[in-house]
Amino acid sequence: MAELHSVCRPLAFLLGTWQGTGTGAYPTIEDFSYAEEISFTHVGKPFVAYVQKTREVGTGLPLHAEAGYLRPQGDGRIELVLAQPSGIAEMLEGTVEGRDIQLASTALLGTASAKPIVATERRFWADGEVLHSSVAMAAMGLELQHHVVSELYRVS
Amino acid sequence: MAELHSVCRPLAFLLGTWQGTGTGAYPTIEDFSYAEEISFTHVGKPFVAYVQKTREVGTGLPLHAEAGYLRPQGDGRIELVLAQPSGIAEMLEGTVEGRDIQLASTALLGTASAKPIVATERRFWADGEVLHSSVAMAAMGLELQHHVVSELYRVS
Repeated sequence: MAELHSVCRPLAFLLGTWQGTGTGAYPTIEDFSYAEEISFTHVGKPFVAYVQKTREVGTGLPLHAEAGYLRPQGDGRIELVLAQPSGIAEMLEGTVEGRDIQLASTALLGTASAKPIVATERRFWADGEVLHSSVAMAAMGLELQHHVVSELYRVS
Repeated sequence: MAELHSVCRPLAFLLGTWQGTGTGAYPTIEDFSYAEEISFTHVGKPFVAYVQKTREVGTGLPLHAEAGYLRPQGDGRIELVLAQPSGIAEMLEGTVEGRDIQLASTALLGTASAKPIVATERRFWADGEVLHSSVAMAAMGLELQHHVVSELYRVS
C-alpha cells in the first residue's frame, strides 16, 4: 500500500468503500430512492480515484454510475474530473474544509447523443460515522436545484 | 450477471480484464515503457465501463490512470467519455468495425491546474488473442501524433 500523498491528506476521511441509500427528486421526474456504493482509493499520487454506482432498491437493477478523480491543490482548493455513462463529463472546482468538500461545475461536456446538463454542484461531507453525498443540477431547461442526497456507511 | 445490452454486443470482445505492456513516446519526453491493466465491464445497460491503470516496469510504481464509458450507438458509431487524474476529460466519437474501435476527440476539458491536451485519437483493436490499445495526442503545442501503444492479454 502506497503512502498517501501529502496533498491528499485532507481527503483521508473519504478513503475506503461506502454503502447506503439515497433519495432523488427533479421537477421532470418522479421522486425516487436508490442504493449507492462509493469507493475512494489512492495510489500514492496527488489524486483520489472516485467510483460510484447506484442500484434500484429491491430489484438491485443498476441505475446511475460515474467515475473520476479528486485533485486537491494543497491550499484548501480541490478539483473533480468526472465521466458519466450518460455521455457527460464534468469539471468541478471547490474547497475542502474539515470533512466537507463542496464543488461547483466550471464546465460540462456532452456527447452528441447525451441529454445536456448545464451545471452541477456536488458535496461530500462526513458527520460522525456517516458520509453524505449530494448533487444539485441544472438540466432540462431548469435552474440549478437539489437532485440527489445519500447517507453512506463505511464497509471497508 | 446481467445480460449484455443489445447495443453492446459489438463490444463483447472487449469484456474482461487485460494485462500487458506498452511503449510511449512524445517529442517533449524520453521514450518509456509501462505495464498496463485495462478492464471493460457492463451491468446490462447500453454502455461498457472502462478502467485503465499503468505502472512503471520493474518498480510497479503507478504512472497513468483513466476511467470512462464506451457508448455504442447501435449503428456502428460509438462514443467514449473519459476522465483522467491529470485533470483532463475527453469526449470522443468514432466507429466499431469488427474488433476494431477507432475514436477521435470532439472536445476536451482541463481543470485550471491541468496541462492542456488539444486533441486525441484512441484505438482498441483485437488481433487473435491480443488486444491493442493506442493513443495519439496533440499537446504541448505539437500536432496530433503517436503517443502510446500496448499489447494486452486477457487475464479474466
